Formats: sequence, C-alpha cells, structure tokens
Amino acid sequence: MKKPSDTMSLGGLVGVFGMVIYGILGSGGAFGQFINIPSLIIVAGGGLTSLILAQSGTALTNLKIGFSIALKKNSIDYSYMISEFVRLGGLVRKSGFLILEEEVENIEDPFLASGLQMLTDGEESESIVSSLELKIDMMAERHGSIASTYDLYTAYLPAFGMIGTLVGLIIMLSDLSDSASLGAGMAAALITTFYGSLFANGISDPIGKKVRAMSEEEVLYREFIIKGILLLQSGENPRNIEDKLLSYLSPSEVARFKEGNN
Amino acid sequence: MKKPSDTMSLGGLVGVFGMVIYGILGSGGAFGQFINIPSLIIVAGGGLTSLILAQSGTALTNLKIGFSIALKKNSIDYSYMISEFVRLGGLVRKSGFLILEEEVENIEDPFLASGLQMLTDGEESESIVSSLELKIDMMAERHGSIASTYDLYTAYLPAFGMIGTLVGLIIMLSDLSDSASLGAGMAAALITTFYGSLFANGISDPIGKKVRAMSEEEVLYREFIIKGILLLQSGENPRNIEDKLLSYLSPSEVARFKEGNN
Amino acid sequence: MKKPSDTMSLGGLVGVFGMVIYGILGSGGAFGQFINIPSLIIVAGGGLTSLILAQSGTALTNLKIGFSIALKKNSIDYSYMISEFVRLGGLVRKSGFLILEEEVENIEDPFLASGLQMLTDGEESESIVSSLELKIDMMAERHGSIASTYDLYTAYLPAFGMIGTLVGLIIMLSDLSDSASLGAGMAAALITTFYGSLFANGISDPIGKKVRAMSEEEVLYREFIIKGILLLQSGENPRNIEDKLLSYLSPSEVARFKEGNN
Amino acid sequence: MKKPSDTMSLGGLVGVFGMVIYGILGSGGAFGQFINIPSLIIVAGGGLTSLILAQSGTALTNLKIGFSIALKKNSIDYSYMISEFVRLGGLVRKSGFLILEEEVENIEDPFLASGLQMLTDGEESESIVSSLELKIDMMAERHGSIASTYDLYTAYLPAFGMIGTLVGLIIMLSDLSDSASLGAGMAAALITTFYGSLFANGISDPIGKKVRAMSEEEVLYREFIIKGILLLQSGENPRNIEDKLLSYLSPSEVARFKEGNN
Amino acid sequence: MKKPSDTMSLGGLVGVFGMVIYGILGSGGAFGQFINIPSLIIVAGGGLTSLILAQSGTALTNLKIGFSIALKKNSIDYSYMISEFVRLGGLVRKSGFLILEEEVENIEDPFLASGLQMLTDGEESESIVSSLELKIDMMAERHGSIASTYDLYTAYLPAFGMIGTLVGLIIMLSDLSDSASLGAGMAAALITTFYGSLFANGISDPIGKKVRAMSEEEVLYREFIIKGILLLQSGENPRNIEDKLLSYLSPSEVARFKEGNN
Repeated sequence: MKKPSDTMSLGGLVGVFGMVIYGILGSGGAFGQFINIPSLIIVAGGGLTSLILAQSGTALTNLKIGFSIALKKNSIDYSYMISEFVRLGGLVRKSGFLILEEEVENIEDPFLASGLQMLTDGEESESIVSSLELKIDMMAERHGSIASTYDLYTAYLPAFGMIGTLVGLIIMLSDLSDSASLGAGMAAALITTFYGSLFANGISDPIGKKVRAMSEEEVLYREFIIKGILLLQSGENPRNIEDKLLSYLSPSEVARFKEGNN
Repeated sequence: MKKPSDTMSLGGLVGVFGMVIYGILGSGGAFGQFINIPSLIIVAGGGLTSLILAQSGTALTNLKIGFSIALKKNSIDYSYMISEFVRLGGLVRKSGFLILEEEVENIEDPFLASGLQMLTDGEESESIVSSLELKIDMMAERHGSIASTYDLYTAYLPAFGMIGTLVGLIIMLSDLSDSASLGAGMAAALITTFYGSLFANGISDPIGKKVRAMSEEEVLYREFIIKGILLLQSGENPRNIEDKLLSYLSPSEVARFKEGNN
Repeated sequence: MKKPSDTMSLGGLVGVFGMVIYGILGSGGAFGQFINIPSLIIVAGGGLTSLILAQSGTALTNLKIGFSIALKKNSIDYSYMISEFVRLGGLVRKSGFLILEEEVENIEDPFLASGLQMLTDGEESESIVSSLELKIDMMAERHGSIASTYDLYTAYLPAFGMIGTLVGLIIMLSDLSDSASLGAGMAAALITTFYGSLFANGISDPIGKKVRAMSEEEVLYREFIIKGILLLQSGENPRNIEDKLLSYLSPSEVARFKEGNN
Repeated sequence: MKKPSDTMSLGGLVGVFGMVIYGILGSGGAFGQFINIPSLIIVAGGGLTSLILAQSGTALTNLKIGFSIALKKNSIDYSYMISEFVRLGGLVRKSGFLILEEEVENIEDPFLASGLQMLTDGEESESIVSSLELKIDMMAERHGSIASTYDLYTAYLPAFGMIGTLVGLIIMLSDLSDSASLGAGMAAALITTFYGSLFANGISDPIGKKVRAMSEEEVLYREFIIKGILLLQSGENPRNIEDKLLSYLSPSEVARFKEGNN
Repeated sequence: MKKPSDTMSLGGLVGVFGMVIYGILGSGGAFGQFINIPSLIIVAGGGLTSLILAQSGTALTNLKIGFSIALKKNSIDYSYMISEFVRLGGLVRKSGFLILEEEVENIEDPFLASGLQMLTDGEESESIVSSLELKIDMMAERHGSIASTYDLYTAYLPAFGMIGTLVGLIIMLSDLSDSASLGAGMAAALITTFYGSLFANGISDPIGKKVRAMSEEEVLYREFIIKGILLLQSGENPRNIEDKLLSYLSPSEVARFKEGNN
C-alpha cells in the first residue's frame, strides 16, 4: 500500500552497475576490459531475437513499456484521492451529479474520469462497476504479458551468454599455437557469460518482478477508486465518504492523513 | 489481440543465427569451424530419438505442424470478420438464412463455414455453440500437445549437447600423447554443447512458446466468431451486429475500423 | 487418438544408442572406450538402490512393468471395437443379452469382457459404470505410480553419474605422479557422468513420459468402451450404435472406417 | 496397498554405500581416501545448522523420527485386521459392546484401541468418525512436516558440499608454490561435493520420499480401520464384516486371505 | 505447535559460520584468506540493489523485519493463554464483561487486547470474528511479502557470486604474464561464489523459510485466541473453557499443562 518511489528503483538499477564497476576496479581490473560490442550483440541481441520468434512484435512493445513502468513514479496517492472524493462528494450533495461534468475535464487519471463520466451519464452502479472492472482486468492482463516477456528474457539472456562463451572457447581452442593470447581469448569468451548473468539478474528479472508488484498495487488502487465512485453515487455525506475510504489506509497512514488535513 | 506478423517471427528465427554468426566472425572465428555433422546428429538426432521413444510418431507430426504454425501468418482479422458479419447480417435480413447456403461455399475459414452451415440447417443455438466449442477444445488440445513436444525437445537438446561433449572429452582424454591436437579435440567436443544450447534457446523453446500464444489468440478469435454467428441467427440488424462485435476491438482498433469503412 | 506404434518407440530406444555410437565412431573414438562395468554399477546400481530406499519393492516392479508398457504395442483399436459393438448390438437385438455369455469367452480384453459379463448378469447401468470406472481409476493410479518411479530414476541417474565422476577425480588427483595416466583417469571419471546423462535422457525420462501418455489414451479408450456397453444395454439398433461411437473418431478416421466397411 | 518391507529399504540404504565403495575400489582407489572429518562436518553440519535456523528444534526431531519411519517395518496388515474385526464382530454379537472393554487392553495399535474404547463408551458414529479423522489429519500433517525437513536437507547438503569445495580450492590456489600437493589439495576439496551429492541423493531425498509414501499408506489403512469400527458398531454379522472389508484388498490378496483362513 | 526457541535459531545462524570456519582451519587455511571487502560488496550489495530495483523500499524494510522475526523469541504460549482465559472466564462470570476493561490495560498482546476491548464494547460475535480475522489476514500477507523478499535474495546472492567470480577470472586471464599470481587471482575470484553460496544457503534461505513457518504458527495461535474470546463471550464456565481450549494441545502438552496446574 506504500507508494513506491521511482528514485529508489532507479537507484537500484544504477546501483547494480555501480557495485559491479566497484568490484572491477577494486579487483585491479580496468573498466575497458569489460566492454565488448560483439559480446553485447550475441547476448542482448541473441536473446532478443529468440524473444521475437516467441512473441512477435509484442516482445519489443512489452520490453519498452515494462522498462518505463518499472522506473516511472506511479500515480498512486490514496490520501490525495480521499480528499478528492470528499470534495466531489460535497459538490454532488450541493449541486447534483451534473456538476461532475466540468470536473471530469480537469481530472488526469483516465480511469477516474471515465467512472465520473458514467456517473453524470446516469448509468446504474452495476453497469459502472462491470465496465470499470473490465478495464482493471484488461490492465492486469497487459501487465502480466509484460512481466512474462521479461521472465522469458531473463531465461534467454544467460543462455545466450553461455552460447557466446562456447563460441569464444571453440575459436580459442582451435588454435593453441599462440599460447600468449590464450588467457586473453578465454577472458573474452567469459565476457558473454558475464553479460548474460548481469543483465538477467541485474535488470531483466527485477524489472519483471517490479511490473508484477506494481500491477497488483494498481489493481488494489483502482478497486479503491471504484469504491469511491460508488460512494459518490449513493449520495453519502462527505464525512462518511472519508470514514469509509480511510479503511483502505494503515493506521499510521490514517494518522498522517488526519494531520495533513488540519 | 494484435495480429502477429509472420515476417517478424521469421526475422526472429533468422536473426538468432545472424547474431551468432556475427559473434563468430566478430571474435575472429571462421564459420566453418562451427559446422560438424556428427555433432549435429548426436544433438538433434539424439534428442529426436528420445522424443520418439517418449511420444511415438506424434513427436514428428507435432514438430512439423508446430514449425509451420509458428512461422505462417495466421488468419486472424477481426476487422474483416466484422465487415463480413455485417454484410451477412444484411443478406439474412433481406433473404432469410437459406441465402447463406451459397455464401458458405466461398468462405475459406472452415470454422466459420461449418457454423453458417448449421445456421442454414436450422439447428438451435445451443447445439451450434456446443458443436463449435468442441471444435475449439479439440484445436486447443492439439496445440497444447504440439507445444509440449517442443518443450520436451527443449529439454532434450542441451542434454544431448552435454552427452556429445562428454563423448568428445572422453575420446580426447584417452590419448593425450599428441598434445598438439588437444585444443582442437576440446573445441570439437564443445560444439555439441553449443548446438544443444543454440537449438534449444534459439529455435525449440521460442517455437513452443509461440504455438501456445497463437493458440490462445485463436481461441479468443473463434469465440468471437461464435458470437457473430449467434448474432446472425438472432436476426439483429447489421448496425447492432457491428456495435456488438466492435466491443472485441481496442479503442484504437475501433477508430481504424471506422476510418477504413468511410 | 492415434494408435501408437511399438516399432516407433522401439526404434526411438535403439536410435538413441545408434546416434551416440555414430557420434563416438564419427569423432574417432572406439566403442570399447565407453564400456566400463564399475561405472555402470555406480550409476545404474546406485540410482536403483536410492530408488529402493525411497519406494521399497514397488520400485523394481514399476521399472519392469513400465518398460514393457512403453515398448509393447497397445491394444487400442477404435475402429475394430466399433465393428465389434455393432456386431454385438445385432446379436443382442436378435437373441437377447444371454447370447453375450458365449461371446465373453472369446474376448481378449478383460475390461470389455467384465463389462459384458455384467450385462448378461442383468446388472443395472449405474452399477456397471461405477464398477468399470473404478477399474479405470485403479489402472490410472498404477500407471501414475510407474511414471513417478521413472521420474525419480531420471533424477537419481545423473546425480550418481556425478558422484561416480567425483570418485574418479578424487582418486586420480590423489596421485598425480604418473602424469601419463592423467588423461586416461579423467576420461574414466567422465564415463559415469556420460552414463548418468544418457540413461536419464535417452531411456528413463522418455519411458516415464510414454507411460503417462499411454495411460491417458487408455483412459479415453476405456471410457469409450463403457459408452459402447451402455449402448448395448439400451438395446439401440446397430446403425445408431455405429453413429454414436463414430463421434469418438476424427473426420479422417471416420472416412477410413467407412471405406474399410465397404 | 502392498506391505512395504523394512529389509528392502534397509537394503537400499546399505546398497547405495555398497555401490559407491565398489566403485571406489573398482576404480583403483582406497576407501580411506574418501574419509575426511572436516569435510563431513562442513557438509552434514553446515546443512544441519541451516536446517536449524530454518526450522528450530523441529528439524532435529523430524530427522530422527523420519529416519526410523523410513526403515522400520510398518504395522500395516489388512488381512490380520480383517480377521480381528470378524472375531470382534462375533464377540459383540454374542455379548454386546461392553465385551470390547477387556479386548482394548490387549490391542497394541493405539488408533484401533481408542476407536474401540469410544464404541464401549457408547459414543455416536459421527463423533467417533470425526475424532478418528482428526487423529489421521494430525498424523498426516506430522508426516508432511517430517518429509519437508528431509526435502530441505536434500537442498542444503549439495549446497554445503559446494561451499566446502570452494573453501578447499581457495586455500589450495592461494599457495601454488608446492605444485606437488596440488592434486591432493584438489582431491580433498572435491570430497565435500562428493559427500553433499551422496548424502542428498543416497539418503536424504529417498527418506523424504519414503516418509511421504508411507504416510499415504497409513492414511488409507486407518480409514479402513474406521470402516471396520463402524461395521462393528452397526452390529453386522461377522460374515458381512468380512465381505465388506475384503473390498479393500486386491483380487490376489483376497485369494491369499481366503486360503489362509482354510 | 511447539514453542520455537530463539536460542536454537540463533545457534543455527552462528553454527553455520562456526562449521565453515572449522572447515577452513581444519583444511589448513587462514581465516583472513576468506575476508574480502570488494567481494562482499559485489555479492551482498549487488544482490541488494537488484532486490531494490524489484521491490523498491519494501525490500529493505522486509529484510530488517524478517531478520528479527526469525531470531526473536515469539510470544506463542498456549498453556499460559489457556490459564488466562480460565481466569478471565471466572472474572466475567462473577462481575460481567465490564471487568475486562481494566484487564485490557495490562495485556501485552495487542491482538488479544483488541479482542477483549470489543467484548467490553458489547460487539456481536460475528463482528468480533470478522475484525480479528482481518488482522490475521493482514499479518499473514505481510509475512508472506517478507518471506518472498528473502526468497528473491536467495536467488540473487549466488547469481552475483558468479558475476563476481567472472569479473575476477576475466581480470586474471587478461594478463597471464605473471604466472606466480595466477593461483591467488583465481582464489580471489572464487571468493564471491563462496560468499554467494554461503549467504544464500546459510542465511537468506533459512530465514525466509523460518518466517513462513512462524507465520503459520502465529495464524493458528491467533485463531485459538479468537476461539477463547468467543468462549468468554458465551459466558461458559471456566472448567468448560479449559476443556475446550485444551483440545488445541497435543496429549503430552495436556499432561504437562495439568501437572503445572497442580
């Protein structure tokens, strides 16, 4: 129920690479030793082409959307939303549902906006709920598909890391005449395994897990919004709306909410 | 709901090999070093014989059908199908169900054709639905069996890759007198592991996943067709048919559909 | 629903070894290098003793029965069985259920025989169904237990392959004075891993999977037989029996059936 | 339903070690090379401490009980129990339930004894069943917990085997000056992996699987005993009790039972 | 149902390191060889940053709480609680529910306190149960989230152990000119794998499992407390309260309870 911080996740992503670079320098290595474009292409590219064979164009869209979902600050703000519902509840009590018509235009969240629109259109609560629940289901399915793409990439990345290392080893072993370059060849061969393991465990797997977690939070949040819309429709007085919606917060969040309102 | 593109998947399949060949050349290797017929036979052949022991002749049929399902353009076209149902709805309204008899002959999709045939035969909606649902179930089961065959191949391929490498290592280690050929022997031994890993992650696993995904899309599409057939039977006017079937499209697809019809 | 061919599975089993032997010879090895009795005993024997600790005597019985199930031609023949039911249906119509008494003696399938016996004994359909369903359940459970034994063997075989290799390596490394025999010692050590991997992926895993698949086919087939027995009991005319039982065949099998009967 | 033999399982446990020792001697090794107390402590002790962190004192109790469950002859004897129920049924018919009071004292199986006690106490069948079913549930839960402890040990043992090998390798590699002891150091390092793999696959995993299997058999057996107690309560005549309880045996066991009683 | 001892778990945690240190010293190594700060940072830090990318700030909170849950003595004491309920039952019988008001202030367990408070507030049993069940559900969900964090850390730790080893190997292999330092470089490289494996199997995995186990115990315990509160509300006499609550103890615990009360 806590509002996840993009800074934190971004820090996690940057941190992974920071830790590894620290490890490289701390072990007496040079950063340049770990940059190798052909290795990068075998691992990230090979994994991606397998992903495309498996999921067609969806793979690319899902990777792009998933990345931004995992790093963008999400719009979940229970406290703000409760205040909004209280304010709208007051308006509705004073001036009827039609007053919402002009509010809808200023609301950023399209989910809330479409719910309020249905209120002003005079739709019945059952129809509003089923229409909004459908939107939630579709969102959850889309997120699930994105997370699956990352799961599959997490599986392909180390596999292509190993494939690349095998390529390097086979080339190196085929010509052992120049024993001086033996170590360098082996080092180069291992870089793909390093890439595969790092990208899988430091980027792809956490992003997939993050998307799944944020999706669950969004589902809970949108169900809370449906609850708020139904309270508006029932014409409850603003105080009751607040009381009922506060049950979605933990005790400490309730305390902070009440403090903020005084 | 997006119509998957065969070109994309084909590109994925070709791309995997492109990436790996790029990696080979980029690492200073020669393509010929990676071609080895006995290795190919141990990996692909050994995996296949295990598959045949496990699944009898079904294994071969499933591999063949799965390959073409994964790379062939599928026939899903919601927009075209909606136009068709609207057109047929108009015909039925004008001339009754019997007019469908001559339409059936021109319809390529056997699923739709058999549904319309049942309409002209005057079968009841329940009987039509149960008969078509049975066809869907049988298709889904067939697809599931195909995907399982690929899953099992995905498991056997790296296993036989390792078996082949062990064979190579044992032969090489048995006679270390000629230390010059040591590297070459080891390189040859590793080629089977390379094949096993590449075929599993670059071909077999993605195809299995693709078949499963396309099967799910087909199921949704055929349920949409059943819906259309029931709308025809109920004698709805074409405008209503269009409205109800458009709910299967995403907002952007609806917009494109309406544009295309003007 | 296809009738699995024993020749095919047997071919799969033989083929696995053929592929591997081809690989050995093709890589310049000698078949004899890969035969090692102590290695065989550590892998197959060690795995077997673990299996016996885990499942007592059941393990041995299950291994034996599973092997013959996987390689024996099964007795599934829908077309023949439909002809039989049609013929028996004609007899029953002409001469009553008692005529089945003498038929039962000539029927090889004990499942069908016990069902017909119950018909002649005048048992009610519910009692016949529940008695035959119980037989199906018990068979499915027995098959499931057999497949589990093979699954467990599939897990133990490579484990003991690795244990054997560790034994070989430890012995070899303890005395490095004779560096000439180093390679040979290592080659010998790897043979157990080779055996473990080959037996698991080339024999045990496919047989377990085959038993499970054949069990599912048998269950469907026996439910079809129950259906046939109920049709006999209801005194349907032979034509109707044929029509109803043909729904268990795919369209192409129906065509072949009708051809064969003309 | 077969009565598992402790001799068999004990043979499996002894056999695993026999196979491995045979492999050691057959490969020219000495048994003493494979005995190393510090290695034993890292593997078995390290795994055990992790188990204790995970499960507290329960871990130790579960290991102890599980070991004896897996190797002790269980007390399942359907045939004997049927004879007992027939005998008790005769007594009850002649002298009423109170006669059971003195029988209870001579009955070893506490489950049966408590059931009979409830009979003499005149409790109703529903109350007897629910009380005995509760005992079965608690037993099954206890067995499940024991099997889980073994499952976890099976996971920790090879992990600590690898940890020990890493310890050995790091120590050995830190000082390569004495190249003579290189092999010996590596051999010593591998012994922990050998222990971890052998204990996991030769002891811990099979015992966990055995406990689970025996638990299922016990559950079935105790449900059969409940059935017998209910038959006693209903005052059935001994012949009927025998008939009804014989349905728990397979045909061949029924034949053996009838033979034994003549 | 046994009361887990913090000393035991703490001993397990300390013991793991004791075993490994014993193994190090017993194999002739020095403790200092195994301390390497950059390695520690790659493994524990790299794993942690991935965890933070995946779970945002929740990761850190969960790690902290999980650690203390796993090592702190829990407050489960069935016997004490039964005595309490008996005592409170006596008070309620004598002086009515309001007497609980002053008791509530002295009760440490907030779960029990809130239940008793609801009793004195005269709430109905259904409302008390649903309110307390909600608290149990929320606790179980929180614990599940903590255990998942540890599960994920258990997966990332060995992955970053391997990444660190690859870093070390690549650096070492890039410059083989100084063959004297070869062994030392490899030893250093292996330390991260050692850390990853040890932290995962010796700390993170057992703590995750412990949290899950303690959560299940807490759920059972709190359901037992709900039962006690309902017995208080129904005004049962103290003897009956004791009888009914004793059914939550095993026979041996009942015996100990009765002994302690005499």
